[in-house]
Amino acid sequence: MRIVLASDHAALELRGYLKDQLEKAGHETTEVGALNTEAYDYPDAADELAKALPSHDFGIVICGTGIGISIRANRFPQIRAALCTTEYMAAMAREHNDANVLALGARVLGTEQAWAITEAFLRGKPSEVPRHKARVDKLGRPI
Amino acid sequence: MRIVLASDHAALELRGYLKDQLEKAGHETTEVGALNTEAYDYPDAADELAKALPSHDFGIVICGTGIGISIRANRFPQIRAALCTTEYMAAMAREHNDANVLALGARVLGTEQAWAITEAFLRGKPSEVPRHKARVDKLGRPI
Repeated sequence: MRIVLASDHAALELRGYLKDQLEKAGHETTEVGALNTEAYDYPDAADELAKALPSHDFGIVICGTGIGISIRANRFPQIRAALCTTEYMAAMAREHNDANVLALGARVLGTEQAWAITEAFLRGKPSEVPRHKARVDKLGRPI
Repeated sequence: MRIVLASDHAALELRGYLKDQLEKAGHETTEVGALNTEAYDYPDAADELAKALPSHDFGIVICGTGIGISIRANRFPQIRAALCTTEYMAAMAREHNDANVLALGARVLGTEQAWAITEAFLRGKPSEVPRHKARVDKLGRPI
């Protein structure tokens, strides 16, 4: 799969770790957002993700808690960004919400927990149950 | 404080628990969204929250994981909805992101953990540090 990772400066290390793990697992990756440890605003990283997402299968956004970057990512109606702290949440994000972006907090999760959540997200499949699909459609309804 | 709670049917019990705790703590509450255990779509509950929020200090949105309802809530540029599973996340959501809505997962959190997170959220104060305020401003920038 083709996966784009976006982060601010606070999440560079976790982003690099996940990029390596994803590549070892056979995926192609792109990185956008902070390039080095200089301060980089998380809303800008979300905006870069939104630009890059159409040429990828999934996105991953990371900031200190994952909160700020996921708020901004979800401003874009074509993005369904799921902030997850457990594998259960990641599985449900794909199954019930057809999430196309995973949001993670670099100051909240250890590296192995973040990778386990990422694997659960990539394994997940959207439900075919009509009520779940109808709710996902409503997420994209104009406000 | 005046707090509006919105949820789907899956989170009615947690919503009722938090409403009682908030009232015991001296807050005024309003409930919107599901009225009973009949299926109620989480995006509709988020839309009801968005309508009610201007006459309240804070909002709380709850669905099974908190993911779907927070995705939809963040479609509204005046909402900064923070999905939290720990008190640390809730404190940071207020301090760094000036979040005005707390999102919770009824199938993820036990009642006491959910209440501890809610208390941490309500105790939190937005940072006066210019870089944090500038990032919050960018969350509201037109997309």
